Amino acid sequence: MMMMDDEMENGRSVYQDRPRTFPAVRSKAYSPLIFRILRQINPRVLAILLLVVFGGVFYVGARTSPIVVFVFTICIISFCFSVYLTKWVLAKDEGPPEMSQISDAIRDGAEGFFRTQYGTISKMAFVLALVILSIYLFRTSTPQQEAAGIGRLSSAFITVAAFLLGALCSGIAGYVGMWVSVRANVRVSSAARRSAREALQVAVRAGGFSAIVVVGMAVFGVAILYATFYYWLEVDSPGSMRVTDLPLLLVGYGFGASFVALFAQLGGGIYTKAADVGADLVGKVEQGIPEDDPRNPAVIADLVGDNVGDCAARGADLFESIAAEIISAMILGGTMAQKCKIDDPSGFILFPLVVHSFDLVVSSVGILSIRGTRDPGTLGAIEDPMNILQKGYSVTIVLAVLTFGVSTRWLLYTEQAPSAWLNFALCGLVGIITAYAFVWISKYYTDYKHEPVKTLALASSTGHGTNIIAGVALGLESTALPVLVISVAIVSAFWLGHTSGLMDESGNPTGGLFGTAVATMGMLSTAAYVLTMDMFGPIADNAGGIVEMSQQPESVREITDVLDAVGNTTKATTKGFAIGSAALASFLLFSAYMDEVSSFARVPFEQVDIAVPEVFVGGLLGSMLIFVFSAWACSAVGKTAQEVVKEVRRQFIERPGIMEYKEKPDYSRCVAIVASASLREMIKPGALAIISPIIIGFIFRILGNITNQPLLGAKVVASMLMFATVSGILMALFLNTAGGAWDNAKKYIETGALGGKGSDCHKAAVTGDTVGDPFKDTAGPSLHVLIKMLATITLVMAPVFL
Amino acid sequence: MMMMDDEMENGRSVYQDRPRTFPAVRSKAYSPLIFRILRQINPRVLAILLLVVFGGVFYVGARTSPIVVFVFTICIISFCFSVYLTKWVLAKDEGPPEMSQISDAIRDGAEGFFRTQYGTISKMAFVLALVILSIYLFRTSTPQQEAAGIGRLSSAFITVAAFLLGALCSGIAGYVGMWVSVRANVRVSSAARRSAREALQVAVRAGGFSAIVVVGMAVFGVAILYATFYYWLEVDSPGSMRVTDLPLLLVGYGFGASFVALFAQLGGGIYTKAADVGADLVGKVEQGIPEDDPRNPAVIADLVGDNVGDCAARGADLFESIAAEIISAMILGGTMAQKCKIDDPSGFILFPLVVHSFDLVVSSVGILSIRGTRDPGTLGAIEDPMNILQKGYSVTIVLAVLTFGVSTRWLLYTEQAPSAWLNFALCGLVGIITAYAFVWISKYYTDYKHEPVKTLALASSTGHGTNIIAGVALGLESTALPVLVISVAIVSAFWLGHTSGLMDESGNPTGGLFGTAVATMGMLSTAAYVLTMDMFGPIADNAGGIVEMSQQPESVREITDVLDAVGNTTKATTKGFAIGSAALASFLLFSAYMDEVSSFARVPFEQVDIAVPEVFVGGLLGSMLIFVFSAWACSAVGKTAQEVVKEVRRQFIERPGIMEYKEKPDYSRCVAIVASASLREMIKPGALAIISPIIIGFIFRILGNITNQPLLGAKVVASMLMFATVSGILMALFLNTAGGAWDNAKKYIETGALGGKGSDCHKAAVTGDTVGDPFKDTAGPSLHVLIKMLATITLVMAPVFL
Repeated sequence: MMMMDDEMENGRSVYQDRPRTFPAVRSKAYSPLIFRILRQINPRVLAILLLVVFGGVFYVGARTSPIVVFVFTICIISFCFSVYLTKWVLAKDEGPPEMSQISDAIRDGAEGFFRTQYGTISKMAFVLALVILSIYLFRTSTPQQEAAGIGRLSSAFITVAAFLLGALCSGIAGYVGMWVSVRANVRVSSAARRSAREALQVAVRAGGFSAIVVVGMAVFGVAILYATFYYWLEVDSPGSMRVTDLPLLLVGYGFGASFVALFAQLGGGIYTKAADVGADLVGKVEQGIPEDDPRNPAVIADLVGDNVGDCAARGADLFESIAAEIISAMILGGTMAQKCKIDDPSGFILFPLVVHSFDLVVSSVGILSIRGTRDPGTLGAIEDPMNILQKGYSVTIVLAVLTFGVSTRWLLYTEQAPSAWLNFALCGLVGIITAYAFVWISKYYTDYKHEPVKTLALASSTGHGTNIIAGVALGLESTALPVLVISVAIVSAFWLGHTSGLMDESGNPTGGLFGTAVATMGMLSTAAYVLTMDMFGPIADNAGGIVEMSQQPESVREITDVLDAVGNTTKATTKGFAIGSAALASFLLFSAYMDEVSSFARVPFEQVDIAVPEVFVGGLLGSMLIFVFSAWACSAVGKTAQEVVKEVRRQFIERPGIMEYKEKPDYSRCVAIVASASLREMIKPGALAIISPIIIGFIFRILGNITNQPLLGAKVVASMLMFATVSGILMALFLNTAGGAWDNAKKYIETGALGGKGSDCHKAAVTGDTVGDPFKDTAGPSLHVLIKMLATITLVMAPVFL
Repeated sequence: MMMMDDEMENGRSVYQDRPRTFPAVRSKAYSPLIFRILRQINPRVLAILLLVVFGGVFYVGARTSPIVVFVFTICIISFCFSVYLTKWVLAKDEGPPEMSQISDAIRDGAEGFFRTQYGTISKMAFVLALVILSIYLFRTSTPQQEAAGIGRLSSAFITVAAFLLGALCSGIAGYVGMWVSVRANVRVSSAARRSAREALQVAVRAGGFSAIVVVGMAVFGVAILYATFYYWLEVDSPGSMRVTDLPLLLVGYGFGASFVALFAQLGGGIYTKAADVGADLVGKVEQGIPEDDPRNPAVIADLVGDNVGDCAARGADLFESIAAEIISAMILGGTMAQKCKIDDPSGFILFPLVVHSFDLVVSSVGILSIRGTRDPGTLGAIEDPMNILQKGYSVTIVLAVLTFGVSTRWLLYTEQAPSAWLNFALCGLVGIITAYAFVWISKYYTDYKHEPVKTLALASSTGHGTNIIAGVALGLESTALPVLVISVAIVSAFWLGHTSGLMDESGNPTGGLFGTAVATMGMLSTAAYVLTMDMFGPIADNAGGIVEMSQQPESVREITDVLDAVGNTTKATTKGFAIGSAALASFLLFSAYMDEVSSFARVPFEQVDIAVPEVFVGGLLGSMLIFVFSAWACSAVGKTAQEVVKEVRRQFIERPGIMEYKEKPDYSRCVAIVASASLREMIKPGALAIISPIIIGFIFRILGNITNQPLLGAKVVASMLMFATVSGILMALFLNTAGGAWDNAKKYIETGALGGKGSDCHKAAVTGDTVGDPFKDTAGPSLHVLIKMLATITLVMAPVFL
């Protein structure tokens, strides 16, 4: 869909006077089994059931901690707010029938793919759950578990249940993202006929709905698990588990979430870019018809791709980011509280949940601050949508700083170190500034207002080759500033935490890592608003497609074009944001992993010494994993695109009437081909990511046993994880930035610079854009999910390495 | 030059009947100051002087160890052999005047660039020498030095002298490589008129000359420094330095060598690819004239580029590889011998010198085994040159295995562990097998006989974009097998060494790292022959250019085409070989660095714990360095190529007679532009590589002082080094393989596959080839020099971090 807006005008004159054709669609929308069951229950019974469930949840929460009750309350309110948002969006009209027909076709394709994809993913999750179960049944238990009287069986079931719940919630997060986007797209198109501002508002509120559900579910899920385990295991009563050890039981949730997110991102990313590249190669290049032309048999697949690739995958991705970050911060908080012998450690443990509860509140305010006015809708008169979104972000961020301060004072105040909360508040500020810096840097490197993209555009004037060289160089170079920012953030947050005054029994400062964790939370403290801006992009993009296909007047198209361009920018910045938080979260999960190994192995595991040859080799293998994963993700897009090309060529040859609008193209064949190919292609990189740490850890564990090196397997995996994280961050930055820059260099030329559309320079820029597609929408976003999945898989699979 | 052979036939018909034009050249060859001075001395005086010098050297050697005398003898014999080879080559005729005129123009350009480039490099080396001097004057001395009575001043002068000698020898190595190639090219062209086999023999012997000088100089230089220091410091006499500490004094030599090699590779790599890409973009793409057409004003610059980029740079590069590897292995040998209290440690320390002495012998045999026969020279009748080269390699490798066994039995036999030498011989075998595996893997991924390149060629059939995506994916994926091989090699060599029976005082096995060192030596034990095959490539390439420009008959061109194609393959495999040895050598230098820091800081420095935030940040910065360095190296080529494009376009416009052969193009302008641009562009990445470890080490040293973390600077630099090594290996593999594969995918299509020359598929493949040029000939080869330069700079600059 990246090439959508550019080619619109191109074919307009040819297209304008043709009869309109529309795809045949199935009338009934798909809804997952669980929703169908719920629908069949009498609403009153349902309401009573819900009340009972919520009552139970609140009862358990109240027995755990008042903080949990607070978190529950905010989550419930947010869910209600999200219901309000979705009702508001759905109340908007679907526009004329030609719009809703296209929208229905898109919805049909997206839901079909979602069903098959998540069917495959859930089968894999089920197998993996069995593997985890059997591993945990045969492993030794930790001293903490023994002290708490948790047997192998309970521990196995706790982990598997958490894993499955995490996977389920991640799936729901993806579904919700897609559910709203396939319904909102047509409403945005329709609203664009009336006013730009209203279209913006519809898109933002639709994005806001799924953002709030995603973030709320992550918080609610962790909180429920925490409270349930607390209540069930009678934590903190004599002879049972200490509350500070509780968060370690939640790692399965994070792993389940990242497992699903990885496959969702891979499958969706391959789908969207294969359909896009394939449709363009035959439609635009060979046949010379515009993008989103109804004659192109792959056009529906292309529009479907936006929903499954951007909305569903990003929903699962952000859900996983937040869950992993909450859990790792809870583990670190618990460890630190225990070391410092803090009287009531629950504040430190539950802090991340409270931060994200406030995130829900302040982001809701931010979303509501974007209001529709009754402006006439002419482009000249309306405000730049980017400014409106930025204003909302400013509101959110100011409120986030305030509430973050409140949270630290409330939860992190302890008499042992009265000023510690202030240090941690500053850590949060470090995180918020880091997020801002990341957003700024990715804008600098990908926006054509700045030097880098202009230079890239200039390089296109000497041909395809120089365009690619310049783009690769730009992407590689763009890793520098984010790395410097993240380095400063890690070191300064660590030292703020270290000097917070929190000491362990022997008087050593211990708050350092927790400081880094707080900085990560600061970075993610506006996650819901950022996700809203991200979701906004593909919805606007789809709306543009529907407007184009349904032949709306020029002014409507201009509105969706502007929204689409803004969406591209917000999408690029969210990626920077996701990488930054992934870098920090992985570093935290790494520490959690070392804690976990220490506790399993019953020996301290505090160092990963890369001067040991095996550990060095582990690092080499970890970095290699990133390279091979990226290779497979990119080539999956290439291969699937080739299949699309063949099918589209076949249809044009076998049905010559298509070009004269006399025959209908078979949209569903392309949808089916892309869907099955992307399902097939997502397995290889995904399996590589899951299996390789397990195998490598196991091999080196055996080697360690033979050569009498204790913990060798665990150390090698730790080093693998760290090197993979570092390489993964750099590679993701490279891929995302290069892709974004190529895209915008093309757009810059299309504004008329350097010869404008149709020039040789433009052709070279289009090549760059095609190369950038799998970089920035398949491999790049998959990588930061991969990084966190690696971190959680090592945590859960730790018993294999010992 | 990568596109040279392909486009030859293209323009032949157009070109055949045109009048011949030839460049104006200066008549007199440049020779460096030192050679001019030597030439002015009376030959008898010179002979006597030489005898005295050699007498002195042998006297010092004899006072040191009989092994050193052995090494000296072999080196002197090899130098004599190399003189024989060069006399043999120079005795060949230069062909008709049209050939030698072109050759003179090339020589003129190459020598001019060499002079300016090495002028700049020597100025920088001088500044750096002053920096090192001042650092060493203000640093504390090590306990070993104090025990030996070496003051700060001596230690400073030792390091600086070693540095300058290393830099000088590296420069000479580069000069020698270029000196012979600019003279041999025309002789190969001329020999190709008579017989393919004779042309092959001339090219091989010319390559062999510089290979033997380069390897011999590395061995001789280290041996002289070692003997001189031994003699001067009265090592092993009571109250002075122990022989096991001596190798640490040599690190400056390695640093000097890698410093010069880095800039030689960067400057040369930028020169050759900027000229190539620039010449092609206007000449081939815009004007439609063939490659190497005398009407193209950039053609001489392009041919010059082969000599300065491939010959001079590769000479300096391999010199540096061998020097760094010898020194690091000597350090490790010394450390181990001391720990194990071996009575006569000199065998362990001098082992690398002996291995490379044998390398000279067996490679000479290999070079001589390639003999010219009086075959008629028709292509059908002659043997495939690749087979001849492979046969020579087989001879060399068999002899290398035998002599390696002899060396281990001779030098590594010790009564403490009678079977240790056998283990080390097996380590050597591991190294040799690793080298073989690397050669095989790079052939698999870059040769169009195999699947990967065929798939890449197929991807070109759907356009520029898919070609680039597939090439990037191929390059990224190709990192997997080499990493697995190197991992197995490191672990198995380490364990062979570990179980060798060598124990320290407390009974801990200590031979592991030395085992890895021996494997590295095994890998490099045929370095001279490998370098010969590498040097062969650009000479054959240049010969092809001369043949083309001087309008030789079809049959002559066919011969040089075949030689050129073989040269491309050998060049690609040498790169794999260089990366493999760089990976192993860096791991050794890393250990040497830790020893050095321990000895300076007087506290044990045995662990680099990446769980410490600052150390993790160091790793992040190290990997980032690799990305940014690659970015700058690639964009330097892009920028310089743009300047060439402008100049060539200008000449075609201002002198319209050029196209009709009525006006002469101004070759020298292009040569001057490329030369000055590449000198300017090489500074930025080079300076980044040198300055960043120093600055980062210094900042974290200060931070460590403030936060009371001892050795923080040294640890952060260590982690930076390791992460940079891992990322650098992967990035270099990616860049080299992708570049080679693109090149050969294009060649595959030119054989007539997928539409053949001139098809859209071919155009897409040409784009890939252009992108691959800076990847495989600028950034890729610079990276493995960079890795070792980082390792040596941290060793020499260690006092800054403490």
